[in-house]
Amino acid sequence: MDRIRVGVLGATGNVGQQFVGMLVDHPWFELTALAASERSVGKRYCDVAKWRAERELPSEVGEEVVLPVDPGKVDADLVFSALPADLALKVEAEFADAGFVVASNARSYRMFDDVPLMIPEVNPEHLGLLEVQQDTRGWDGCIVTNPNCSTIIMVTTLAALRGFGLESVQVATMQALSGAGYEGVASMAILDNVLVHIPMEEEKMETETLKLLGEFDGERVIDAEISVSASCHRVAVMDGHTEALWVKMRDDPTPEEVREAFHGFDADLHDLPSEPERVIIVRDEEDRPQPRLDRNAGGGMSVSVGRIREGIRYIAMGHNTIRGAAGASVLNAELLHKKGIL
Amino acid sequence: MDRIRVGVLGATGNVGQQFVGMLVDHPWFELTALAASERSVGKRYCDVAKWRAERELPSEVGEEVVLPVDPGKVDADLVFSALPADLALKVEAEFADAGFVVASNARSYRMFDDVPLMIPEVNPEHLGLLEVQQDTRGWDGCIVTNPNCSTIIMVTTLAALRGFGLESVQVATMQALSGAGYEGVASMAILDNVLVHIPMEEEKMETETLKLLGEFDGERVIDAEISVSASCHRVAVMDGHTEALWVKMRDDPTPEEVREAFHGFDADLHDLPSEPERVIIVRDEEDRPQPRLDRNAGGGMSVSVGRIREGIRYIAMGHNTIRGAAGASVLNAELLHKKGIL
Amino acid sequence: MDRIRVGVLGATGNVGQQFVGMLVDHPWFELTALAASERSVGKRYCDVAKWRAERELPSEVGEEVVLPVDPGKVDADLVFSALPADLALKVEAEFADAGFVVASNARSYRMFDDVPLMIPEVNPEHLGLLEVQQDTRGWDGCIVTNPNCSTIIMVTTLAALRGFGLESVQVATMQALSGAGYEGVASMAILDNVLVHIPMEEEKMETETLKLLGEFDGERVIDAEISVSASCHRVAVMDGHTEALWVKMRDDPTPEEVREAFHGFDADLHDLPSEPERVIIVRDEEDRPQPRLDRNAGGGMSVSVGRIREGIRYIAMGHNTIRGAAGASVLNAELLHKKGIL
Amino acid sequence: MDRIRVGVLGATGNVGQQFVGMLVDHPWFELTALAASERSVGKRYCDVAKWRAERELPSEVGEEVVLPVDPGKVDADLVFSALPADLALKVEAEFADAGFVVASNARSYRMFDDVPLMIPEVNPEHLGLLEVQQDTRGWDGCIVTNPNCSTIIMVTTLAALRGFGLESVQVATMQALSGAGYEGVASMAILDNVLVHIPMEEEKMETETLKLLGEFDGERVIDAEISVSASCHRVAVMDGHTEALWVKMRDDPTPEEVREAFHGFDADLHDLPSEPERVIIVRDEEDRPQPRLDRNAGGGMSVSVGRIREGIRYIAMGHNTIRGAAGASVLNAELLHKKGIL
Repeated sequence: MDRIRVGVLGATGNVGQQFVGMLVDHPWFELTALAASERSVGKRYCDVAKWRAERELPSEVGEEVVLPVDPGKVDADLVFSALPADLALKVEAEFADAGFVVASNARSYRMFDDVPLMIPEVNPEHLGLLEVQQDTRGWDGCIVTNPNCSTIIMVTTLAALRGFGLESVQVATMQALSGAGYEGVASMAILDNVLVHIPMEEEKMETETLKLLGEFDGERVIDAEISVSASCHRVAVMDGHTEALWVKMRDDPTPEEVREAFHGFDADLHDLPSEPERVIIVRDEEDRPQPRLDRNAGGGMSVSVGRIREGIRYIAMGHNTIRGAAGASVLNAELLHKKGIL
Repeated sequence: MDRIRVGVLGATGNVGQQFVGMLVDHPWFELTALAASERSVGKRYCDVAKWRAERELPSEVGEEVVLPVDPGKVDADLVFSALPADLALKVEAEFADAGFVVASNARSYRMFDDVPLMIPEVNPEHLGLLEVQQDTRGWDGCIVTNPNCSTIIMVTTLAALRGFGLESVQVATMQALSGAGYEGVASMAILDNVLVHIPMEEEKMETETLKLLGEFDGERVIDAEISVSASCHRVAVMDGHTEALWVKMRDDPTPEEVREAFHGFDADLHDLPSEPERVIIVRDEEDRPQPRLDRNAGGGMSVSVGRIREGIRYIAMGHNTIRGAAGASVLNAELLHKKGIL
Repeated sequence: MDRIRVGVLGATGNVGQQFVGMLVDHPWFELTALAASERSVGKRYCDVAKWRAERELPSEVGEEVVLPVDPGKVDADLVFSALPADLALKVEAEFADAGFVVASNARSYRMFDDVPLMIPEVNPEHLGLLEVQQDTRGWDGCIVTNPNCSTIIMVTTLAALRGFGLESVQVATMQALSGAGYEGVASMAILDNVLVHIPMEEEKMETETLKLLGEFDGERVIDAEISVSASCHRVAVMDGHTEALWVKMRDDPTPEEVREAFHGFDADLHDLPSEPERVIIVRDEEDRPQPRLDRNAGGGMSVSVGRIREGIRYIAMGHNTIRGAAGASVLNAELLHKKGIL
Repeated sequence: MDRIRVGVLGATGNVGQQFVGMLVDHPWFELTALAASERSVGKRYCDVAKWRAERELPSEVGEEVVLPVDPGKVDADLVFSALPADLALKVEAEFADAGFVVASNARSYRMFDDVPLMIPEVNPEHLGLLEVQQDTRGWDGCIVTNPNCSTIIMVTTLAALRGFGLESVQVATMQALSGAGYEGVASMAILDNVLVHIPMEEEKMETETLKLLGEFDGERVIDAEISVSASCHRVAVMDGHTEALWVKMRDDPTPEEVREAFHGFDADLHDLPSEPERVIIVRDEEDRPQPRLDRNAGGGMSVSVGRIREGIRYIAMGHNTIRGAAGASVLNAELLHKKGIL
C-alpha cells in the first residue's frame, strides 16, 4: 500500500510537535512537509521547534527545512492544521480549495454548517457533510475538524450514554497547562493557584457538544436537544484534563448501568492505527482516574472514567493534546482514509 | 472587661497552630492552655509544634508547657478543639461535662440533634439548641461546632441566596492541601496531578448544608429541603478552597440579582472581632476569585465570589483553615460571648 | 518635614508594582507619578497594571493616570526605575540630566565607573561616586543603582564576613520565578522541573560582587580581589532566592565564628524606614531558611542564613523582589535622603 | 540459557515497585518472589502495593502472593533489596548467610570494608571484595551494594574525569521528591518552597565517593584522596536529581577537554541488558539537562551533563530511582552474572 503523504501546518508549536511525534512512525501516513510561520521558513525544523517531548526528535525530521503555509509549496495529500484560529480561517480554505484534505484542530471551521465536526467513535456519519461542503464551496479538497480538547473528552463519554436519553449535562473542568500552549500560562499565574476562567472554553463545550451529538439528515446536522452548562478552570497539571460531570438522562440509569455502558462502549474502529484498545477505560478504584497516572492510557487516546455515583455523577479524564488535539485529528484522517475519502 | 480564658485542644497540628495564631492577640480571649497528645505533654510548645506560619511564634507562647487533653489539667473557660474526630467524640464530652464551653472544629458532634452546627452569619438562632443539649445531657458546659471547610465556604454564599428559594445545588470543589493536614497529602501524590476523591467530603457537604440552612423550631433543627450534590477534588494549592457551583432557585433570579444579593449580604456581626468588613466579597473581574490572590481577604475570613453566570453558576473561594476551620470556631466563640453564653 | 515626591518608571510590571506597594505608605516619600510605556500612557493605573499583590491596590493610586517615561511629564524629585535594561540606558540618563535623582533597579548603569552600585549596609561610602558622576557627565541629577537580586542576597552575607579576609566564593542558586518577571517563565517550562540556565545571571553575580566589595579611593572603586564562581538555576518557587555558598577566607574561621559574624552584623541604619530590625537573621534549625517560610522576614528586607557548616558552607535566602529589587532601590533612596543628597 | 530466579525484598515501596517494573521483562532474570513486611504477607501484591507507575502492573505479577522477608520462604537465586536501612542490616545478612546473592540498594552495608560498593562503569574490580567477604563472614551467599542516588549520578561523571587527576569536588544538589519515598515529603512542605536539608545525604556523598573511586589492592579498598563537599537540597521535581558541580583537577583541563572526556566515556558494558547506549549524554544546549526532559534518557540509566564551563563547573542530572536506585542494583546483578558470580 502506498502511504499517504501528509504535512503539518503550524508544525513548530505545542500541538504541531504532537502531530510530528504521532506521524513519524505512522503506518499509513508519511510526513512530507512541515510548514510554519514566516520567521521559521527556510530554517531547519530542529532549529526553530524547541522540541520538548521526552522522545527525541528523529534527526531526519529535525533536518527538514520548514516550508511556508502555502498550498503551492507543500507537497502532500493531506495537511494537519495546528494553526491559530485567526490564521486557520484563511489558510485552511486555501488548502482545501487547492485540493488538499485538511484535518484541522483549529476552531475556525468547527461550527460551519457544511463542515464536519468529528469524533470517529461518536459521529462518523457526519462525514457525509463533506459532499455538501464540496458542492457548496466548489473545493477539490475539504476540511474536517475535531472539537476542542475539553469537549472531546466529555462527549466521548456522553456518546456511551446516548441510549439512556441524554437530557442535561453540567461539567466542571480542571484543565492542564498544555491546553493553553507552551507560553499560554505564566508560572507565576498558576503556582499555588487555580485559574477560574479559560476564555471561550465554556462556550465551546456548550455549542460543540450539540453538533457532535446531533443528527445528520443528509443535508445538515440537527443539533442535539441537550442542555450543557460548563464551568472551566485551569490547574497546575502538565497534561490531562479532568472533568467532573453531572448527567441527567431520561431513563434514569443506575451507576452500575452507566458503568456497563462505559465498559461496553466500542465503536469498532480497531482497524484504525490510532484507535486504542479501549476508547473508554473504566477505573473502579475510588481515587482514579488521575491525570498523571492515566493520561497516557491507550497511548493517550483512551478516555478514563471513574467515581460513577448517583446523580449521575462521574469523573472523565483524557490527554488533552493527544486524544484532545493532535490524536483527534490523526484519528479523523485515518477514518477518512478508511472511508476512501482520502 | 475581663478576658475569657481559652485553651486549644490539639494545639500542635495544622489547625491547632491556626488557633494559636488567631488567639495570641485576641481582644476578648486570653490563651491560657495548650493541650495535645501524650507524646507532647510536658514539653515546650515550640519544641513539639513545628511552627510553619510566616508570622513567628511569640516566644512567650513557645515557652508554654503542653498539657494533656484532660479537663482536670486545663485551666480555661472555653476550649477550642482541633482534635481528630475519633478522639474528639470522647474528649469533648468530658470537657463539656466538666463545665467547659467547647468550640469544636472536629466533625464528631456536628450532626447530633442537640448540638448546634454554626456559622454565625448563617444560623445564629441554632444556638438555642444549647439549652436542649444541656437538658438532655446534664452537662454544665456545652459543645458548639462549625462545619467542614468546604461546606462553610459554600453555605456562606447560599445564605445570601435564601430569599430566592434555594432548590438544588451542585458543587465541584478544587480544594487546597492544607485541608488534609500537614502530612495529609504526599507531594508525589499531587505534583502534576489532581486527586478526584476526598474521603467523606462529599457526604459532609451534602448533609451539613441541610442542617445549617434548616429551621430551629425551639426543640430541634428541621433540615432544609434542598438537594445538594458534590464532587470533591484536591489540587496543588496551599490554602484556599475554590468551588464551582450551580444553584437552582424557585425565583429564577438573574445573575445581576444574584450579584446584588451577594453584595448586600451583611449579617450585622461587626461587633465580633473576627468578623470581616465584608462576609462575601464580589469580584467582578472575569478571572477572580483565585485562591492565591484572594484567600487572605478579610484576614482570611471573607468568602470571595465571582463569575456569576446564567445557570445560576458562580465561583466561591475562601481560606479553608481560617474561615473554614480555626476562624470559624473562633467566630462561634465570639458569638457565644456576645450572646452571654460564655 | 516635607515629603519627597517620587515617581516610578516602569510602574506596571512586576517590580514596578512592588515599588508602588512599598511607596504607598512610605513615611518620607510621596508617590506622585506613575510612568510606563506608550501603550499604558493616559490610562488609569488600575486598568493597565494587572495588580497581583495580596494587599489590594489603594483606589486613589489605581485612579492615577499613567504618564510617559519623559522627564518633562513627570513631577517628582526622585524616580525609581524598574525599566527594562535596554530602555533604562537612554531614559535614566535623560532623567538624571533633567535633574532627577534616579534610583535604578535596572542593570544598565551598574558597572559604569562613575555610578555607585549600592547596598546601604555594605558600601555606603560608594555614594562618593556621585560627585564624580556629576562632574563627568554634567548632570544636575544622578543615578544610583542596586545590584542584581541574587547578588544582593549573597553580598549582604559576604559583607558580614569581610573581617575574615574573603578569598573565594562558589555559589549555586535556586531562584524564584518572580525574578524573571510575571511572564518570564512559562508554567510548562518549570512544573516538575529545574531550569539550569538563567541568562547573564552568573556573570552579574561574578562581576557586581567585586565592585560592591571594592574600595572607593575618592575617585573610583577598586574591585575587591575575590574569586566568585556562580551556577544559577530556576526552581518552582514564587518568591525568595535560595543560595548555597562556599566561602574561603584567609583566617579560616570556624562555623561558630561565622555564625557570630552574621549574628553581630549591624550596619546601624535603623533610622532608615525600610531597614529591618536584623539585616541578617541566623536560623539555627537544621532545615531553615526556606523561601516560603522566611522570605517575608523583616518585611522582606532581611536575609536569612542557616546551615553554617565546615567548608565554610552555608545557605542564604532572601526575598528577590523586595530585598533583591524594589526594596533595595528604596533603601538606597532612603540613604541618599539621610545623607542630604536628596 | 536458564533464567536466574530473582526476588525483591521490600517489594511494595517506591523503589521496590521500580525493581518489579524493571524485572518483569528482564531477559536474564525471572521474578519469582515478592517479599515485604508483615502487614503485606499473604496478600496479593496488587492489593498491597499501591501501583503508581504509568505502565500498568502486569496482572500475573499483581496476583502474586507477598512473602515474608525470610530466606526460608523465598525461592530465588538472587534478591534485590529495597529494605529500609535498619531492617536491611539484619535481613540482608540472613539472606547472604543462607546462600543468596543480595544486590542491595540499602545503605546499611555500603561502607563495610568487605562489601563492594559498586557502579559497574566505575569500579567493577571492587567485586574482588566478595571473596574477602565470604572468607571473613563464612557466608555461602554475598552482599553487593550500590551507592546513594545522588552519589551515583555525581560519581558516574567523575569517573570520566579521573584521567585529569581529581583533587576536589563541590556539589550542590536539587533533588527530586521520589528520593525520599512516596510519603517522604509532604506536599505542604515543598509547594512553593525549597528544602535545604536532606538528612545524611551530604555525608553519604562525601564518604561513598571516596570508596567508589578508591583502589582495590586485592584485600581492601583504599579511599581515593579527593575532597568532596556537598550541599543537598530538595525541590519540587518528581524524578531526576540535578547537581551543580565544581571539580578541581591536577591537569586543569579546559571545558572542551572535559566535554570530550564525558563524550568518550564508555565502560564497554553493552552486553549488560540495562546498560544504556551512552552512560553519559552530553547536552550542548545552554539550558540542558533538565530533569523533566532528560531523566528518562537511556531508559533512565543515562546520566546527562551540560553547561560545562570554566571552573570546571557543570551540571549532571540523572533519574534517581532508576540509575540512582533500582536500575543501579539491577546493573550490579547483571555484572555479577556476566562475571560468573551468579
